[in-house]
Amino acid sequence: MSYAQFLEQMGTVNDLLCSASMLSWDARTMMPAGAVEVRGQQIATLMTLARTTLLSDETLRRLEAAERSTRDLAEDSAERRAISQTQYAIALHKRIPDELQEERVALREVSRAAWVKARAEDRFEDFAPYLEKVVALARRVAESIGYEQHPYDALLSLFEPGETVVSLDKLFGRLRESLIPLLRAVQAKPQVRWDFLERDFPEDAQRDFGLKMAEAFGYDLRHGRLDNTVHPFEISFTREDVRITTRYKRNYLPASLFGTLHETGHALYEQGVDPAYTRTPLATDMPGMYAVGGVSFGAHESQSRLYENHIARSKAFWDLHYPSLVAAFPSQLADVDAAAFHRAVNRVQPGLIRVEADEMTYDFHIMLRTEIERDLIAGTLEVKDLPERWNAAMKSDLGLDVPNNRLGVLQDTHWSTGQIGTFCNYTIGNVMAAQLFKTAVETDASIQPGLDEGNYAPLRHYLRETVHQHGRRFSRDELLLKATGRTLDPEPYIEYLTKKYTELYELG
Amino acid sequence: MSYAQFLEQMGTVNDLLCSASMLSWDARTMMPAGAVEVRGQQIATLMTLARTTLLSDETLRRLEAAERSTRDLAEDSAERRAISQTQYAIALHKRIPDELQEERVALREVSRAAWVKARAEDRFEDFAPYLEKVVALARRVAESIGYEQHPYDALLSLFEPGETVVSLDKLFGRLRESLIPLLRAVQAKPQVRWDFLERDFPEDAQRDFGLKMAEAFGYDLRHGRLDNTVHPFEISFTREDVRITTRYKRNYLPASLFGTLHETGHALYEQGVDPAYTRTPLATDMPGMYAVGGVSFGAHESQSRLYENHIARSKAFWDLHYPSLVAAFPSQLADVDAAAFHRAVNRVQPGLIRVEADEMTYDFHIMLRTEIERDLIAGTLEVKDLPERWNAAMKSDLGLDVPNNRLGVLQDTHWSTGQIGTFCNYTIGNVMAAQLFKTAVETDASIQPGLDEGNYAPLRHYLRETVHQHGRRFSRDELLLKATGRTLDPEPYIEYLTKKYTELYELG
Repeated sequence: MSYAQFLEQMGTVNDLLCSASMLSWDARTMMPAGAVEVRGQQIATLMTLARTTLLSDETLRRLEAAERSTRDLAEDSAERRAISQTQYAIALHKRIPDELQEERVALREVSRAAWVKARAEDRFEDFAPYLEKVVALARRVAESIGYEQHPYDALLSLFEPGETVVSLDKLFGRLRESLIPLLRAVQAKPQVRWDFLERDFPEDAQRDFGLKMAEAFGYDLRHGRLDNTVHPFEISFTREDVRITTRYKRNYLPASLFGTLHETGHALYEQGVDPAYTRTPLATDMPGMYAVGGVSFGAHESQSRLYENHIARSKAFWDLHYPSLVAAFPSQLADVDAAAFHRAVNRVQPGLIRVEADEMTYDFHIMLRTEIERDLIAGTLEVKDLPERWNAAMKSDLGLDVPNNRLGVLQDTHWSTGQIGTFCNYTIGNVMAAQLFKTAVETDASIQPGLDEGNYAPLRHYLRETVHQHGRRFSRDELLLKATGRTLDPEPYIEYLTKKYTELYELG
Repeated sequence: MSYAQFLEQMGTVNDLLCSASMLSWDARTMMPAGAVEVRGQQIATLMTLARTTLLSDETLRRLEAAERSTRDLAEDSAERRAISQTQYAIALHKRIPDELQEERVALREVSRAAWVKARAEDRFEDFAPYLEKVVALARRVAESIGYEQHPYDALLSLFEPGETVVSLDKLFGRLRESLIPLLRAVQAKPQVRWDFLERDFPEDAQRDFGLKMAEAFGYDLRHGRLDNTVHPFEISFTREDVRITTRYKRNYLPASLFGTLHETGHALYEQGVDPAYTRTPLATDMPGMYAVGGVSFGAHESQSRLYENHIARSKAFWDLHYPSLVAAFPSQLADVDAAAFHRAVNRVQPGLIRVEADEMTYDFHIMLRTEIERDLIAGTLEVKDLPERWNAAMKSDLGLDVPNNRLGVLQDTHWSTGQIGTFCNYTIGNVMAAQLFKTAVETDASIQPGLDEGNYAPLRHYLRETVHQHGRRFSRDELLLKATGRTLDPEPYIEYLTKKYTELYELG
């Protein structure tokens, strides 16, 4: 009984967090503009009550009773992991003082506004004082959390538990060493044709095609919906209600096409969690600081990347579905065949903007930002020197000159809102996606034939079995170890990119 | 300081209630069907936390301190009224035992399902046992709340404080005595032409026209939005976010036309509340049992009825706006002029269904239901005798034969969900609307000229001044007394209907 009572208490915490997420979804999709301020208060109240409930004596009492009653279960049983996740979250919340949390919230409002203005006017120097405060606060958060080697490790633990400056240095070193020669080889080749991607693609038809593919992948619309936002995202309020958004560019088809299927990958993760974990600490729908401790942001990103890149950008996918895309856009694609379309949506084209980057160059944007964060937190890089550092890296990695800070260091919102430590998740997602996908097709002989004929169930079942169903029960590396026999390993990713671009650009 | 601390605590309660309303709006407009059950849990958690917070020792402490610090203010000052509203809500919650509340929630689920089935199959006898339980529980609620004369008075106090069996008997007597002869006189006249209302009216154009009129009335879309639902409603999450919904019938124009402007009336009330009352006990956005004690459901309905009937069904409105309706539906309305349209949307046509009733016969549907509720609670009417009683009243009041219970006693969802005591609000809304509107045009000489030329600001300012801005500070009769010099008075309503239908049907 006592474990059930503990879960009941955590169900209240989950309801509060999911309600806050619901209010946040509405704020980004439906809410009239004039309600911004009061909505912020409502969300803050729900988050405060979630925190108060989590840290209450009642929770502690039930937690201790649950711990006693589950002591004979395996360490990695769902019960004991739910308990240890909760203990971890409580400890973390207790380590970060209320006033520090309040300072962060207060700073976020003003620094984001300063960033919006500074970006519009291309005046980095106006944003710099705010960024200095953001960095100083992040350092204090790191000190509160604690770390062994590097303060940045503490911030990483909030998003990608287990990852450190040392492990990332090693990962990035290996990626640079293999991807830079590959990129140079691609750049030496003539560009593939892609002009037709910029024709006029009416939004409704884009939506219909994207949604049809999302459903083919297994996205269940009885428990989901697709909306339109400037910044696409996936969000869930339990596995029973998992929503995605996308952005339609009428004159650039890939934006919504791959955006929708990227978010579908996230959504399949949420919809695939064991129903028994709903409203428990093992559910994956715990926003904010409650998300740490279990599975990582990188693990979540691995699912979106897997569906976006390994499936939706594959030759098999377009060989099969291109006729139906042509049916949706008959005049726009009249002069393009499946092979040309597949090449176009996989073209490599180094650019200044992260969110527009192709699969080959995306990680360079990430490594640049992660290393800057690391050095800012370490104090070996000063905010004022950021543009210089940024521009030098863009030149050395991608060979690009950055004409102004709007297209450079001011392009992302993350730092202005106090998010430091979370860029690396994207690259870890790429690496993990390749590692899982390789093992998947090697392990289950029905997966690749399924993909070839448009039956996505075998892949989905494999991912549900190995990743989705577990929710936050296992860590990222535990999942990888069980599924692939190895912890995070960049070799399958390097292998995948090398093979892909060697074929596409007919490299030696 | 202590009053501010009390308000801070009540702000948390308001945030929880508004969040619950937000989740409820989403459930009725956007939510995927598969999320029904878990959404119910989330809303229940928020409502429970609101109640727990309201009844907490902390609230009591702050309430007592606030009371001490405001003792020298006037009894009807905002501060003292906020305090007394809170005391009333606390007392009420304490009087209704938890287990009774839980029994009601549990019964609601099963009885609503039984009603849906019984209605579909036209088997009142299958619903009767559930209705008996609903009535028995309502009696227990009435006993818990307490009353002086009649148990039904206790239930009325939840929705229309101050109203009693005695006062309603008197009101209904006066309405019947004057409206039945008027109705008979109308029925003796030939019907006006209205066939053109059933032509094909595309939804988008209906929406555009309705929204344009709503904005003309003063509905502020920076703090609102209009959506489409089967059952139209208005809901707010503070005055900064006041949403309405409507229902489009492609082959019956009045449904969305007047539905939208009805909900607009509700929305103007919410948007007009003093901003200083936001997140306080004087805000009007407190759903469920927190809504009692201040202004009444009838007062809210008076604003929707005023805009729907006194404005949007008026001759002045159609003389002015009919050309723009014709511009929206040129072929559909080619052979109809403004006068004919005005007559058609005001035609009297006794029917079996309350929600389709015209302005003249609507109150008969309400009086019938209210009197049945009263007698059920008193025990002078048994559930099994309900159809007979219903059908006899439809015959004597409206001269109609009820062919089956689907079109009779089974038509409304209210009783199946345990709502008893709330039908009378509609008629009180009608009465109050006429009383306020009469005084408005008599008091402010700029109102009628404004209405004639499409300037709705003078009316809105008058209603804001006399009603909206006060939120829940004054009772319905206090508002009426200040505005009109009288408490609720049916004479202006009778006068209005008599004048209107005498003209429309050219009665003697």
